[in-house]
Amino acid sequence: MTASAIKFEVIAAAGEARAGIIRTRRGVIETPVFMPVGTAATVKGIRFEELESSDLDPAIILGNTYHLWLRPGIETIKACGGLHRFMGWQRALLTDSGGFQVWSLGALRKVSEEGTQFRSHIDGSLRFLSPEVSMEVQVGLGSEIIMVFDECAPGRATYDEAARSMELTARWAKRSRVKFDELQLSAKDSSGAPVDDLSGAQALFGIVQGAGHLELRRESMARTVEIGFDGYAIGGLSVGEEKPLMFEIIDATAPHLPAHKPRYLMGVGTPEDLVESVARGVDMFDCVLPTRNGRNGQAFTSKGKINIKNARWTDDTRPLDEACGCSVCRRHSRAYLRHLFLAGEMLSSILLTHHNLAFFLDTMRRVRQSIRSDDFQRFRREFIEGLSSNDN
Amino acid sequence: MTASAIKFEVIAAAGEARAGIIRTRRGVIETPVFMPVGTAATVKGIRFEELESSDLDPAIILGNTYHLWLRPGIETIKACGGLHRFMGWQRALLTDSGGFQVWSLGALRKVSEEGTQFRSHIDGSLRFLSPEVSMEVQVGLGSEIIMVFDECAPGRATYDEAARSMELTARWAKRSRVKFDELQLSAKDSSGAPVDDLSGAQALFGIVQGAGHLELRRESMARTVEIGFDGYAIGGLSVGEEKPLMFEIIDATAPHLPAHKPRYLMGVGTPEDLVESVARGVDMFDCVLPTRNGRNGQAFTSKGKINIKNARWTDDTRPLDEACGCSVCRRHSRAYLRHLFLAGEMLSSILLTHHNLAFFLDTMRRVRQSIRSDDFQRFRREFIEGLSSNDN
Repeated sequence: MTASAIKFEVIAAAGEARAGIIRTRRGVIETPVFMPVGTAATVKGIRFEELESSDLDPAIILGNTYHLWLRPGIETIKACGGLHRFMGWQRALLTDSGGFQVWSLGALRKVSEEGTQFRSHIDGSLRFLSPEVSMEVQVGLGSEIIMVFDECAPGRATYDEAARSMELTARWAKRSRVKFDELQLSAKDSSGAPVDDLSGAQALFGIVQGAGHLELRRESMARTVEIGFDGYAIGGLSVGEEKPLMFEIIDATAPHLPAHKPRYLMGVGTPEDLVESVARGVDMFDCVLPTRNGRNGQAFTSKGKINIKNARWTDDTRPLDEACGCSVCRRHSRAYLRHLFLAGEMLSSILLTHHNLAFFLDTMRRVRQSIRSDDFQRFRREFIEGLSSNDN
Repeated sequence: MTASAIKFEVIAAAGEARAGIIRTRRGVIETPVFMPVGTAATVKGIRFEELESSDLDPAIILGNTYHLWLRPGIETIKACGGLHRFMGWQRALLTDSGGFQVWSLGALRKVSEEGTQFRSHIDGSLRFLSPEVSMEVQVGLGSEIIMVFDECAPGRATYDEAARSMELTARWAKRSRVKFDELQLSAKDSSGAPVDDLSGAQALFGIVQGAGHLELRRESMARTVEIGFDGYAIGGLSVGEEKPLMFEIIDATAPHLPAHKPRYLMGVGTPEDLVESVARGVDMFDCVLPTRNGRNGQAFTSKGKINIKNARWTDDTRPLDEACGCSVCRRHSRAYLRHLFLAGEMLSSILLTHHNLAFFLDTMRRVRQSIRSDDFQRFRREFIEGLSSNDN
């Protein structure tokens, strides 16, 4: 196992909730952190200049290995100097392993001990993804944080299905670790310094699986921690299981993961989910909700969700959220945003996505601040009350 | 006829080309000027913050009366305080009359002396647009520059068709003038000051029609000038006629329009067209090319056009235009923009539109500068040479 390329430090705690920092070669990430999703080398509808503006200002965004591997392809991205240079983003990147994306293909995939065979959703070509291939691709992309190649079980998987999947994930985690270490070492010169800007200075996170079965989750956690990673993720949640079960699983895992490593809850969730998961010890999140729902006309506000299509807003000159200071709320009314959505104008997606990301990212800033100032429980109560008021 | 609400002044000339300023209640417009098209209360894909940035910075944009009248409707826009407040744009606006848009509906419309009956492209409802209705709507929108309601003849219309259409346009121009004056007067208090922010301080432009027939164009010009307007437009060009004929018509009209009023060539055109029309005395332009073609993957550069889909750009790390300093060219490569386009990412449209608008607006800045510094003919020659080089 190579020395960690990131450094994590907890600087304040409130119950299980904790505020910390992750130092990477591309800047410091304050936690708890929300990572906007940049699937195909773009956070959909958002220019990088906007991402870097004080409204949004995320320290890290996520890229999807599966999508980038299929298009434009790793050779193109390498020829352009790696993913950061290709997309024009100089802050930190986390890439997923492709495991979840391939799992989402459903019937189009075939899982074996060796890896997963599937047909590309773009051109139908036959492709093969394995722990080794995923590590090669992610190291080639040059992301700061790389995820092990895992298998995801459905939220309602039976014990046997989930056990089989969890054990495969554990074997794949070991293979990911071995291949990752080999690639990191070969990317360093005799002094131990990285030979290029892309690899040799990356971190690898393990993933806890086990579907809805607490016993399997605990076993997966033990086996993942035993291998040893720079951070630990909880995968396979928000995939159809009931919400109380999701929190039960987070309770059974997050606070018991190594305290000196970041804990990452993958693909979750609503603003409530984020705050409730922070309360259970989670440090990192990613989710498509602010971007995808923005494109579909849904805005997240401090008083709950707004459907911008609603006729109520026809001539409502108020901003989406009167408590929000983002550039969209400073300038545009619900009436205007509704018009843009109904007219099918791209600017509707652009503006709703911007506001939603501002709301998620600002929520996390407030979460961090409240933990540091020992005020998290009050913040949590008032925030959840506001969301439930639906007083738009 | 009411006193003009705008003031135009020529400050330098080079042959027929002239540089000037138009003073409006919402800022000074330097001419020759290119007006980005904001059909449905948005310049497609561009945030207003970007429009206001130094990359773009247009002093005036265009809104389409037809589209806004149908959706969201004039009552909604009035309830939100007029078009400027509705969309969040505090600089000058020009609205067209709806005449050209209704003409574009083809078989869906029926023209009578009174006006044009047509079916809405949105919900199929039967609507009626006339000089009086168009004035009511445009005054209600609150734009700085309002266009008379005209009828457009096809580029290849016969003499008789074109004559009939031109004469109808002349009668409609008179009715537009009368209704406009009445609305402006009634929007002023006893001291002559506008009673609200929307009307009473607007300018009205006439439109020269006559299809491809120089004799009719001259007659239309004489009849339009006789009525008297705050500016004069040349309409019905770039609608299918040959390019030499277009320039013949511009030669026969633009330099002969009143020297102390702005001259506006509607719906034209390519970068070459703009510079060649400035050389013939035109002061104002609008065109969908930079925005529409940007969405379709076409970039305008100083060395000619680029089709971003082209496989040549697969791993080309150069910007769209090495001579361009816009935020897109400073940050993103052809390889990345090609990837975004092929992946169907919204950011492709956003970035290509931004660059194209930057190119058009910067070209007009350079046109103005060259006229002021008595260097227009050299600029014109070198600019056209560069475009024709296709040395991308």
